[in-house]
Amino acid sequence: MISVEKALQIVLNSTQDFGVEEIPFFQSNGRILKESIVADRDFPPFNRVSMDGIAIDFQQFQNGQKEFFIEGIQAAGSEQRSLKNPKNCIEVMTGAVLPKNTSAVVRYEDLEINNGIATILIDEVKDFQNIHPQGKDEQKGAILIPKNIQISPAEIGVFATVGKSTVKVAKQPKVMIISTGDELVDVDGIPLAHQIRRSNVFTLVSLLENLKIPSSTNHISDDKEVLKTNIKKYLETFDVLLFSGAVSKGKFDFLPEVLEELGVQKLFHQVAQRPGKPFWFGQTETCSIFAFPGNPVSTFVNCLVYFYSWFYKFVGIKFEEKTAILAEDIYFKPDLTYFLQVKIHYRFGHLIATPINSNGSGDLSSLIKADGFIQLPNDKTEFKKGESYPIIIYK
Amino acid sequence: MISVEKALQIVLNSTQDFGVEEIPFFQSNGRILKESIVADRDFPPFNRVSMDGIAIDFQQFQNGQKEFFIEGIQAAGSEQRSLKNPKNCIEVMTGAVLPKNTSAVVRYEDLEINNGIATILIDEVKDFQNIHPQGKDEQKGAILIPKNIQISPAEIGVFATVGKSTVKVAKQPKVMIISTGDELVDVDGIPLAHQIRRSNVFTLVSLLENLKIPSSTNHISDDKEVLKTNIKKYLETFDVLLFSGAVSKGKFDFLPEVLEELGVQKLFHQVAQRPGKPFWFGQTETCSIFAFPGNPVSTFVNCLVYFYSWFYKFVGIKFEEKTAILAEDIYFKPDLTYFLQVKIHYRFGHLIATPINSNGSGDLSSLIKADGFIQLPNDKTEFKKGESYPIIIYK
Repeated sequence: MISVEKALQIVLNSTQDFGVEEIPFFQSNGRILKESIVADRDFPPFNRVSMDGIAIDFQQFQNGQKEFFIEGIQAAGSEQRSLKNPKNCIEVMTGAVLPKNTSAVVRYEDLEINNGIATILIDEVKDFQNIHPQGKDEQKGAILIPKNIQISPAEIGVFATVGKSTVKVAKQPKVMIISTGDELVDVDGIPLAHQIRRSNVFTLVSLLENLKIPSSTNHISDDKEVLKTNIKKYLETFDVLLFSGAVSKGKFDFLPEVLEELGVQKLFHQVAQRPGKPFWFGQTETCSIFAFPGNPVSTFVNCLVYFYSWFYKFVGIKFEEKTAILAEDIYFKPDLTYFLQVKIHYRFGHLIATPINSNGSGDLSSLIKADGFIQLPNDKTEFKKGESYPIIIYK
Repeated sequence: MISVEKALQIVLNSTQDFGVEEIPFFQSNGRILKESIVADRDFPPFNRVSMDGIAIDFQQFQNGQKEFFIEGIQAAGSEQRSLKNPKNCIEVMTGAVLPKNTSAVVRYEDLEINNGIATILIDEVKDFQNIHPQGKDEQKGAILIPKNIQISPAEIGVFATVGKSTVKVAKQPKVMIISTGDELVDVDGIPLAHQIRRSNVFTLVSLLENLKIPSSTNHISDDKEVLKTNIKKYLETFDVLLFSGAVSKGKFDFLPEVLEELGVQKLFHQVAQRPGKPFWFGQTETCSIFAFPGNPVSTFVNCLVYFYSWFYKFVGIKFEEKTAILAEDIYFKPDLTYFLQVKIHYRFGHLIATPINSNGSGDLSSLIKADGFIQLPNDKTEFKKGESYPIIIYK
């Protein structure tokens, strides 16, 4: 049995590079950017008026002039005009190009306009005021977005601004999610007394959906030959197989055996953690196999701890570790890393983690009551209120 | 000009109820649940074996018996068996029904099995050990998930478990997102010197996508009659219109005028905040109209502050306010609520908000550098390092 740290290290070392694809920018929300986005021109691209009002030659105001004849209007989206007479002004709209021969904008609030004459009501006007100078935000050629970031609405706006109608993103791995166990019936079936419905595969599908990874699912009964035939096919077709169940020590838990018979290299089986201990992990040349224990909470936490980390490593994303503060003393004796289910509250900028009552790894509804797992290391048995530990927030 | 608090209150009072629809459970991730989910039977539904090993009659162990003849195997997913002779045992697998006439499970690790006889190697066995009792997690009829929550992978798993192949969720509003401004060209166009590309609509589409709200988009030029004709049609067809631009005081900012001419009731125009001040909000009997200022950061923050809050109110979701701790002293004199762009770091369970350098509301790339807005109230001018304020995290 290996430690969580060691298991994670092995998982992260096994990531492969599945390459890059180019997609329409407006479909890229949540995907991983694989190219740097560069300013195609200065931002703003011209001296940009930032208030509605009049543009003047600042020198005239310096010389004491307060009344300006309005020569015309410079609208946003119109070609740059020129102030013909330096003693006049041009009305300007937010977003417009600053007219030639002008060097300050006085906003309507500080003006009175009568009969085509604008009178400045304030005593102080600054050179170049209310103008967003060309190139102030970014210069042409500057990197606006580095590659290897997760795309969010903010990035989508920048893609549009610089004319990136398609963007290069990490290809998503092809994933098959497989449930095993003869005790499982379909969601719309009526289980007999000794049966339960399939649920973990759907949880996994949704957890992957949150990473924008589409996945296929299947159920295989606890028959060694059927398992073997199907898995052989999947190993050839998919980049990743996720299993839920059939990795304990039970008589019908053929899975590790079947995988090894099919030439999958076992990298570890069993991790010193609770819940999720009987996790089996292996690989072939082309496929990574995550076989999670069948209990709902075990499958859930292992997907977040191992598969999510594997995926982010694989696409080149690094996240800052989040931590939270324990709201209660915790005593946990086993020599295992303890992923304790907690509810998170925000208090004066502190993340407070309050343990929820749970009946162990089979307790599906505990995942509803909690919104995260706080990770308590195996080298201690007492964890004090007020101490901070790594947190995985899933809601 | 009204305060942010007052504006938000008006926006929240304007929400309507667009009803409920029933969708396949596996498509419901991210949607808002509009029914309570009830346990269709006890959880676990039977006394569930939680370790692989043997099931015995605990009384026999109490009486000093250590060797048990194996009568058979109880697999997960098989009908309940009965122990025929109380002095024997049945091999049991994790997830299986506890066989009749047995009352404790001893795991393989604590056994030696030879010639069909299991010998218990440990001295202590507890009554009902390694059994997850029927109904321990939830009793039949218990509410597993209350309505009015945002569905996540944890809830998807519970839907499957209780056989909810379809679930009732809040209908999404029909949203049209409209850009205005003659300075805008399409993303795949080459702007002239005085033009820029359309970007805010795509940012808004993505921000709504994160709420699972599909939306339509259109661009209307700065022509009053064209604006009027189009908006009239949209007011009749959509539940929500989102505008970006044309709400300042500029000569070509017809929008407020056009909306009022079309019978839209103006609820406010201009909010005491930076950025995002020229926000216009109104409604008809059937439509809510959010007209955001055209600067990228203004549109972004107003969508998060007002539209997100409006949506969550409308679907019945309440979120706990998040707060973060300022990493630097901030001085801000104007009598405005200041949505300051910050980068969030997690340190020992603290959310630390470090202001980023920004060139104001026209600076699109500042949205990339930051990951949140800290909300500094208008009744103060000095905000000290170490103080905590509400935070909107968007990444």
